[in-house]
Amino acid sequence: MFDLPKSVILEDEALRDGLQIEKTQLSVAEILQFVKGLEAAGMRRIQVGSFVHPKWVPQMANTDAVFQELERTPGVVYTALVLNLKGLERALKCNVSHLSVSISASETHSQKNTHRSLADSMVHIREMISNSVAAGVTTRGGIQSAFGCAYEGAISTDVVCDIARLYDSLGAHEINLADSAGLANPKSIIELVTKVRAAVSPRVTLSLHLHDTRGLGIANMVAGLQAGVTLFDSSLGGLGGCPFIPKAAGNIASEDAVYALQEMGVETGIDWRKLADLAITLEEKLGHSLPGRLAHLPRAA
Amino acid sequence: MFDLPKSVILEDEALRDGLQIEKTQLSVAEILQFVKGLEAAGMRRIQVGSFVHPKWVPQMANTDAVFQELERTPGVVYTALVLNLKGLERALKCNVSHLSVSISASETHSQKNTHRSLADSMVHIREMISNSVAAGVTTRGGIQSAFGCAYEGAISTDVVCDIARLYDSLGAHEINLADSAGLANPKSIIELVTKVRAAVSPRVTLSLHLHDTRGLGIANMVAGLQAGVTLFDSSLGGLGGCPFIPKAAGNIASEDAVYALQEMGVETGIDWRKLADLAITLEEKLGHSLPGRLAHLPRAA
Repeated sequence: MFDLPKSVILEDEALRDGLQIEKTQLSVAEILQFVKGLEAAGMRRIQVGSFVHPKWVPQMANTDAVFQELERTPGVVYTALVLNLKGLERALKCNVSHLSVSISASETHSQKNTHRSLADSMVHIREMISNSVAAGVTTRGGIQSAFGCAYEGAISTDVVCDIARLYDSLGAHEINLADSAGLANPKSIIELVTKVRAAVSPRVTLSLHLHDTRGLGIANMVAGLQAGVTLFDSSLGGLGGCPFIPKAAGNIASEDAVYALQEMGVETGIDWRKLADLAITLEEKLGHSLPGRLAHLPRAA
Repeated sequence: MFDLPKSVILEDEALRDGLQIEKTQLSVAEILQFVKGLEAAGMRRIQVGSFVHPKWVPQMANTDAVFQELERTPGVVYTALVLNLKGLERALKCNVSHLSVSISASETHSQKNTHRSLADSMVHIREMISNSVAAGVTTRGGIQSAFGCAYEGAISTDVVCDIARLYDSLGAHEINLADSAGLANPKSIIELVTKVRAAVSPRVTLSLHLHDTRGLGIANMVAGLQAGVTLFDSSLGGLGGCPFIPKAAGNIASEDAVYALQEMGVETGIDWRKLADLAITLEEKLGHSLPGRLAHLPRAA
């Protein structure tokens, strides 16, 4: 009834998905300090930024500089988001070895987020994935609003599977199902993961990106584990949201996810206490509190 | 892999477990207003108060008056907590048809909460359960700190089963496993529920009381469902905590629990939107925000 994987990998996205909606812009040195703090806690995959036009997301303007100054630790994957071919070019110049590209499964979310229809997005993403894979970069194809859309409500699981099959056919190494609006529940997680798993090649890794908007983030992670998922996005302190999705909460807090996994006997190699301390440092830097729970409890408890 | 019960019952405990740590004391009329609001949302079991000495918990001083003035709706269970024989006498005078009694599975928590050892508590509870059952009252025996103790850490599942068997032997109708300190996780929920289920008669109903201290409340509810539990405590708005357990969060928010259940196709007969509105009214009354999620989202989302 409750057979969980032995170990999982977390990808911390605080420095991209989290920071992109903050007023405070962190310097290259500050971002690198958090990257090193995440590493010191045992995080082995870190999304460092986004190669997006600085006009749209000024918080990510220094992603190139961050990658140029980053001292890479063997065994740690430093990844970034790219949204177009220009961004991909920049990422390749920075010798990024792992990249995420992403489209939304929702027509309305796609239009609002990128001014492109879903059909156009599916054409546009082809070249990005092909070029990224051809450049030798480990490539993740993300499917936003995979579990429902803040504007449209339910999203067809057939559409999600179509996008997943496209990614697979283009050679993407990983497919990320993103609950951008926090509309997933444990049942829908198990159903969609099972359906997508059956739709794509066994070589493709499935991962989950879970926003905690309705308090179901950790429950959804547990359901993902039960469905065999071993790779989850999380965010230091629970930092995050989405500029285009009203009241979207951040990803599940990394320290809370690690605590929950550890208590269930699932290994992550990460020390949640160190993450909790780092989340407090991040709060101080940003000047407001973050939604994660463990960071705010007495450490002995 | 994911076989859930068709329907569950929620017991809202905001007016007891929630209110008891608040500075604001609600009047009899105000408490009755919330009881009726919970009923109007479809809640079919409501913990109305506690027959405790007003010196210890002044917020509960008017529980007798609340029961005396309460207009009882057929099909709705109005319950209360009693802590000693004097309280039981008061409850019986108020014609309460359903009662909770409770001890802690933790020696230290027991000493701090009641100034009694666990052994003394197990003697003391005998007469309470026997008398309550003999008076024709549906009686719930609660086991606090069943999943771990804020002071002691791990709690022996054998001790929990010993208490459960004692309750069973005394004729208790229901056994409530309480995660008072928010230390349970989905794995420990399934393990303990399975073990206690095997230790007691089939006639006994098992229920879960889940504090959300570490953000695992809803995940633990889902695990409870997977283990076959069909009765959960919750609290309007997530109001609550414990005066004797540092930083204990409240129960899972009723509206969040109803939303999660509904999304998974589990019936509750409750309208989470009405609960969410009532949670906002409760926030206004208490003068501070509550931790529940759904109440604070735009209602269309």
